[in-house]
Amino acid sequence: MGFYERTTKGFINIDPLQTGGKLSEEAKKALTEWGDGYSVCDFCPGTLDKIKTPPIYNFIYEELPDFLGCDVARVTNGAREGKFAIMHAFSTSFECERKIVVMDSNAHYSSYVAAERAGLGVFFVPNSGYPEFKIDPEAYSMALDEKDVVLALITYPDGNYGNLPDARKIAKICRKKGVPLIVNAAYAVGRMPVKLEELKADFIVGSGHKSMASAGPVGVLGMKEEFADLILRKSEKFPAKEVEMLGCTARGVTIMTLMASFPYVKERVKRWEYEVEKARKFAEMMEELGMKLLGEKPHNHDLMFFEAENLYEISKKAKGGRFFLYRELKKRRIHGIKAGLTRHFKLSTYGVGEDDLEYIISSFKEIISKYKQNPK
Amino acid sequence: MGFYERTTKGFINIDPLQTGGKLSEEAKKALTEWGDGYSVCDFCPGTLDKIKTPPIYNFIYEELPDFLGCDVARVTNGAREGKFAIMHAFSTSFECERKIVVMDSNAHYSSYVAAERAGLGVFFVPNSGYPEFKIDPEAYSMALDEKDVVLALITYPDGNYGNLPDARKIAKICRKKGVPLIVNAAYAVGRMPVKLEELKADFIVGSGHKSMASAGPVGVLGMKEEFADLILRKSEKFPAKEVEMLGCTARGVTIMTLMASFPYVKERVKRWEYEVEKARKFAEMMEELGMKLLGEKPHNHDLMFFEAENLYEISKKAKGGRFFLYRELKKRRIHGIKAGLTRHFKLSTYGVGEDDLEYIISSFKEIISKYKQNPK
Repeated sequence: MGFYERTTKGFINIDPLQTGGKLSEEAKKALTEWGDGYSVCDFCPGTLDKIKTPPIYNFIYEELPDFLGCDVARVTNGAREGKFAIMHAFSTSFECERKIVVMDSNAHYSSYVAAERAGLGVFFVPNSGYPEFKIDPEAYSMALDEKDVVLALITYPDGNYGNLPDARKIAKICRKKGVPLIVNAAYAVGRMPVKLEELKADFIVGSGHKSMASAGPVGVLGMKEEFADLILRKSEKFPAKEVEMLGCTARGVTIMTLMASFPYVKERVKRWEYEVEKARKFAEMMEELGMKLLGEKPHNHDLMFFEAENLYEISKKAKGGRFFLYRELKKRRIHGIKAGLTRHFKLSTYGVGEDDLEYIISSFKEIISKYKQNPK
Repeated sequence: MGFYERTTKGFINIDPLQTGGKLSEEAKKALTEWGDGYSVCDFCPGTLDKIKTPPIYNFIYEELPDFLGCDVARVTNGAREGKFAIMHAFSTSFECERKIVVMDSNAHYSSYVAAERAGLGVFFVPNSGYPEFKIDPEAYSMALDEKDVVLALITYPDGNYGNLPDARKIAKICRKKGVPLIVNAAYAVGRMPVKLEELKADFIVGSGHKSMASAGPVGVLGMKEEFADLILRKSEKFPAKEVEMLGCTARGVTIMTLMASFPYVKERVKRWEYEVEKARKFAEMMEELGMKLLGEKPHNHDLMFFEAENLYEISKKAKGGRFFLYRELKKRRIHGIKAGLTRHFKLSTYGVGEDDLEYIISSFKEIISKYKQNPK
């Protein structure tokens, strides 16, 4: 394969970015079948979402809204592109005032950058700080009283600690204040059950490559009917084309892998309780080895953040310094903790088998004990 | 494959959207190797463009600028996303004035929609009308005198007639008037030699899935150094992230297939003269059968628009009416002329072998003669 070899392919991968994006067997077939450029456009009657065979129309107008629990859904080029489409539609619908998006301080950088690109200011709702970093719904109430708030966003769960805030309660507060709420569910949609109508929020975005077993980049966007005219307004000159979607979005293999994985994804979210159990058990074993789980306790998601003073101490003396952990894990064909991190790192146990999790734990154990005996 | 079967896969495909986007053998390997979600992010030091292995950094900072003949390049989610990024950066850099993009009236709908999304008005430079629909560079001069022109765009070639306007001359006029020019080269970059520095324009956009043998959606964006600070401005809070790129763009298999096909694409653009020759020969044979090539003559691109009064006459009496042509071609395993079209249609001969082109011609001949003998 030359320089295109993906060296991490056979590894146990616990990078939170990777565990939910591995292709299903059906998606692997769709990948090779629909790999060529504009493959789906052979079947296009005018816009991507109207293609009947393959059943893109049915997916976008029936299956996806049903899955997201929303009135109207679209496929985007990613969660961030969905957030930007919402924010941009709002920001350009009220001329030339500086406006504010209220978001949790655990928000992904792309939420901030989407607001920035849309010319919106950001007000962060603080978290509770060390060690749980939780978002208190009541803090939204105060934040929404800021001047010129046009939208709110909650990250559900966030990508650092895997905390699942009380989005329903936040939605209720937003509703009371008349501010539409975006749920950034890039780490929820496709991993765990989540429905916009149950959270009673206004928008939901998800990520195909992050959590829906799909080739990237691709995402999903769901909304309540009342916002469809604003977010999906049509071009004045090309009335079939939605302006915020630039006409068509995931025009190729990305939407096909998303659709191919969809039955698999719908099934796997039903096993969410088992995934949480597995994550908790893993965290417990990590804590037994001297590392500390930060974020919510008990933990409710596969994405976990650890504080490891013991590994940090080792790194001070180890050969290769702070890169020792990455190397030791690599030797054991484990990938996903960023090179150079020892004291603080995140990982995900999503879809990782119990045997593999045990192997990871025993690897940590081995590494810790190895450097205890011989610090260099 | 169930309902995910791509029924056109084994066909001779002359849809202009498809001929330049077929994956190379190397890209097919990259496709399966890098199919999983965020696959490239295993190697990320902070942003997509900084990944050293696989050599994304080298591709974006060395190979791509060299290929596009520009100072600075980025990989985007498609040509339209590149156009929008440019227009949006310009539109938001001057507060709250209505501004105008001047573009040729042969422009792709996505150029208009990108301007519309960026809150910009559009002034169309007229073409010469039937039968050549050419764009006169001098017409840009007058258009640029309109009030509040902020950008100009030329479609090179356009996606309807495959006309190659004198972009160099248009660029010269734009330069004189102080208006930056975008070259929409979605049907040029990856098919034929084209360099921003030779055209002396300011921006160039290309399409991976349309013309660079890549899985979609993915595109390229090239610019002159002087615009890099504006278009690629960094986030205030996340200084590694480029706002108009929303941080990272083609974060997955799309950039990997683009890169894998790149050596192949660089080679194939050298055979452009042969492709033009082939197109001209094909057009000649179509004209001998009674169909008329519209657009520039002699023709300089593989994308061609035909007017076929003879097929239109047949459609009036044929069983199935205007769908007869689509069906007759389908029977012969030829795809790419939209179902229902007979009087006017476009097609592309790019990369289609001479034998296949002869087969297409003999198929047209057969169809015409069949309905001549028996109009129903």
